[in-house]
Order: sequence, then C-alpha cells, then structure tokens
Amino acid sequence: MGVQQILQQISVQTPGRGFTRLDGRLNTWIRSTGMNQGILHLTCLHTSASLTINENADPRVLQDLDAWMTDAVPEHRSYLHDDEGADDMPAHIRTALTSQTLSLSVSRGQLLLGAWQAVYLWEHRSAAHTRTIACHLFGQPSSRPTPEINTQTSSASPQTLLSLRNGERINQAIQARHDPNAWGTDDGIDTNTDLMIDRLHDLSD
Amino acid sequence: MGVQQILQQISVQTPGRGFTRLDGRLNTWIRSTGMNQGILHLTCLHTSASLTINENADPRVLQDLDAWMTDAVPEHRSYLHDDEGADDMPAHIRTALTSQTLSLSVSRGQLLLGAWQAVYLWEHRSAAHTRTIACHLFGQPSSRPTPEINTQTSSASPQTLLSLRNGERINQAIQARHDPNAWGTDDGIDTNTDLMIDRLHDLSD
Amino acid sequence: MGVQQILQQISVQTPGRGFTRLDGRLNTWIRSTGMNQGILHLTCLHTSASLTINENADPRVLQDLDAWMTDAVPEHRSYLHDDEGADDMPAHIRTALTSQTLSLSVSRGQLLLGAWQAVYLWEHRSAAHTRTIACHLFGQPSSRPTPEINTQTSSASPQTLLSLRNGERINQAIQARHDPNAWGTDDGIDTNTDLMIDRLHDLSD
Repeated sequence: MGVQQILQQISVQTPGRGFTRLDGRLNTWIRSTGMNQGILHLTCLHTSASLTINENADPRVLQDLDAWMTDAVPEHRSYLHDDEGADDMPAHIRTALTSQTLSLSVSRGQLLLGAWQAVYLWEHRSAAHTRTIACHLFGQPSSRPTPEINTQTSSASPQTLLSLRNGERINQAIQARHDPNAWGTDDGIDTNTDLMIDRLHDLSD
Repeated sequence: MGVQQILQQISVQTPGRGFTRLDGRLNTWIRSTGMNQGILHLTCLHTSASLTINENADPRVLQDLDAWMTDAVPEHRSYLHDDEGADDMPAHIRTALTSQTLSLSVSRGQLLLGAWQAVYLWEHRSAAHTRTIACHLFGQPSSRPTPEINTQTSSASPQTLLSLRNGERINQAIQARHDPNAWGTDDGIDTNTDLMIDRLHDLSD
Repeated sequence: MGVQQILQQISVQTPGRGFTRLDGRLNTWIRSTGMNQGILHLTCLHTSASLTINENADPRVLQDLDAWMTDAVPEHRSYLHDDEGADDMPAHIRTALTSQTLSLSVSRGQLLLGAWQAVYLWEHRSAAHTRTIACHLFGQPSSRPTPEINTQTSSASPQTLLSLRNGERINQAIQARHDPNAWGTDDGIDTNTDLMIDRLHDLSD
C-alpha cells in the first residue's frame, strides 16, 4: 500500500505568553490514524504564535528562553503597528524569529524526537488565545511497514547508541514521576531528580 | 491514485530589501497542477534572502519587522566578510534567523493559511535581485480526494470556528477593496477600514 | 511506481561550537538509496544544536555568523538554567533562533541547492559532541522518473538562467581547487580566488 495523507486542524488553548506542549497530543492523534511511519507537517496558522522544539525536562530552560526573547524583542520600542496593544508587534517579530512550520518524522507510530526534545506552541501574545495548528500526515499504515534503517553509520559507537536508548527510557521514567514545579520552588538547591537529569544530559546530549 | 510529486523552480524579482508576497502566485501554480490536497515544500535557493510567513493586512507590520531586523543585525559591525558591501554579511545573518525552507499544507487546491497569514520572500540585500524558489508539491489530484478531517477537537467551541471562518471571508472581502497604502498615509488616524480590521483581529487572531 | 519512504538516522561528530557541513554526506546517502527525485526531511534530534543553510565558499561568513550569535545570545547573562555550564542555556536559545527541521528537494539524485548554499549542523555547545540527525526521504527511484518542470516562468531572462548554471559549475570547480584556509590567513589581501568568487557572487547571487 502506497503513501497516504491525512489533514486535520487541531485547536490549542494557550494561557497567554509561554509554551504549550504538543507532542503528547500529536502522538495520540497519530496513533488514531493507524499510520506507522511517515512525516507529520505542522503549520501554525497565526502570525503572533509559532512552533519550536526545545528542552522537555527542566522548565527553567523555557523561562530563560522567554526572558531572552522579551529583552531582544521588547514591547517598548516605537512600533508603527501599535493599534492592538504593546504586546502585538513584538509577537509578530518573535514569530518571524522562530518556526512557522515544522516537519517531523514518525516512526513506530509516534514522533521521532531526541531524548530531551518536546514540541511546543509558543504563544507570543499576553492574553490567552485559541490557536489552530494544521497537522498533515504523509505515511503508511502498519500492515505493510516500509524499511526503517536504524543502523547508525560508522562514526557512532555502540556505546553512544546504548546510552541514547537508555537515556530515552530513563527520561520517560523520570518525567512520569518528577514534580515539574520542583525547579521553580527549590531555590537553586539541587534535588536528587535534578542531579540525575543533569547526569543524563551529560551522557546523551 | 497515489501521491504524486511535481517540482518547479520559479523566479521572483525583488525590489531590494523588503518583502515580496508569494502566496497568490503559488496558488495560481497549484491550481495549474490539478493537485487538490498535499504539501508544498518551498526552498529559497540563496544565502541572502529567505522565506517567512507574517501579517497580510497592515503593511506597517512589515515595516516594523524590517526596522527591528535592521537594528538587531546592523550593517555597521566589524565583519570579516565585507568584500561584497556593507549589506551582504547582515543579509547572511538575517537569512539564518528566518526560514530557508517552509512546508505548507494544500487543501481544496490552495495553500492552507490562517486568515491573517501571507507567505513572503524576504530580500535581505539592498539592491534588486532575481531570486529562485524551488516549489515541490506532493499531493493527489482532485478526482479521488483523500479524506480531510476538518472537525476540530473538543477544545474548540462552535463559536470560535464560526468566527474564524467568517474572519477569513471578511478578510478576503476587505483585502479586495481597501487601499493598502492607507496605513502609511493616514498619520495614525484610524480609518473605518483600520477599525474593522482591528476588530477582526480581536475576533479571530 | 509510487512514492516510497526511507528513514535513517546518521551520527555527526562535531568539534565543539561551529559548523559541520552535511550536504556531501547527505548526497552520498541519497545516491545509495536509488531515489532520483523527492524530498529529504532533516530533524536535528537535540536541543543545543540545530540546522542551517548558508554560504559554502568563504568561511569568514561562518565566522561572522558565529560572532554575531555569540554577542546576541551571550554566555554571561543571569540564566536560571545554569547547572550544565555557561554555554548550555545560550545553546538552547540559539537552537530556537535557527532551524530544528529542514525539508529539501532532491532532483537528479542529489539535493537541490543554490550555487552558494551548503547545509550545516550548527553545534552550539563549546565541547565536541556526537549528534544524531534523522534523514527521512520521500521519493521515487530513477527507473520511472516523475516530471520535473525546470522551465522558469517568464520573469527569468535566459541570461539569468545561463549565469546561474555557469555559477554552479564554476563554483564546484573552484571549491575543488581552492585552499579553504586562505581566507583566514591572507590578512584581508584578496587572492585571485577571492576575487573570482566575489565576481561570481555578483553575477549569480
């Protein structure tokens, strides 16, 4: 059976400026299509919100990303387009600096991401919004899987591959257990979970 | 009939630094191919021009984008690569900060874009250039359309969907009628068209 | 024969912060698949390294890119996420400002790139790393090639097309011969090769 396509638009409710994680929801949808291997094309259908891939474990990375962007593209600059509030024109610029479309591999019925990657909708407006993402999947159902070549080329040692695979599994286990607010509340004192995650970063990132 | 592909390179004449809108021309080409649903992959084949998606209504957004970029990546910085003029190295950096490739959904024979989105070639050099864009369409002709699932998931209220659809139609009607230079010449005094567009932004963006 | 897909993950050894060219290696892999025309989707499976397309001839362009990014996203800023070294959080931000995925056309069994374009993995961490790139090719083998429409539209003059094609061939010839370190060591004095490359830039970029 040849390559097929499915197009669906999903709505995402944002809480205002910041990051809304999408990959869990996207994986649920991919599984519902029966597609085993393919490419998922994402388009954010707005000019003041965008897509990005970044750290999935330590939420302070997202806070630092937001802080840098707020300084680099400030609200207080003499914009010509200022009718819709001081947060609007910066949102257009921040959209241009990040991704409006992403194309991600699907393997074994889910997004192929690195151990520390998550896919985010980045809301650049201050207020909560309902955003629409076009999800367009090109692929093949699992009944007749196409070849996936996972043998890495010679420059990757078996040790690297092993640690990468373990990193993914351990990362999933950690994320299922840890308190995502711990980073924000521990005032810089490393918890055991923080230290374990740091060690995993060292190993596999 | 399965997924087919068509690759065409198009030439775009730019007037020097600034934005040249592409989506009208791309839609004309898509219609000429007979492809009803698919993905259009765009690659800008240059290192001093790039692709971006942003506001299609108020041209002041593009002026503000340009002004921010001019300040953030200035011409007057001690670049090593300065043989081709002061505008050349900033153009390479601005290219790296925006998109070299975009992958956009095609639905019902045209690009699937948000109500306020347009696709632009962003010329980063000062002088006029002829730029080449690779347009690579993967899709299926309309004789045997593949399923398009437009039912949004539960987090979108029917009201949201209604206002979004109306927004698109009203936006198209406004763009067919309004004077695109009004923003530049009305000296900040809102015209009725400006106010209507602001209201539509509030409703659907 | 319809569109087929092949997914392979490749490992890339980086020397620490900087650019590792990928397109030669990608072309070798594409040829090994027997795919003649299609799209190659690349995903960098990390949050502190990214993908970009930029100048393939003068290495000073890459040095200037690196210098600008180092100033714009500095190491010495009060980041919350600082457990993994001063170079880590800037690497996450630089990743967000560049490309996490790229989708490139394949034509005649190799990547379709502009005369001056190369595809790079941009390592944003200071230390050497082994990075994994997902390479996902959708296409068709050469036995039954699909139509490729290379006739440019009316806005391209025959002269432009001729100079572009010559530019590619001459560029390949120059790159096969010239010393890539000459730019770094000639202390700003133009060599004959520099001057020839500048002239080609003028003609075709």
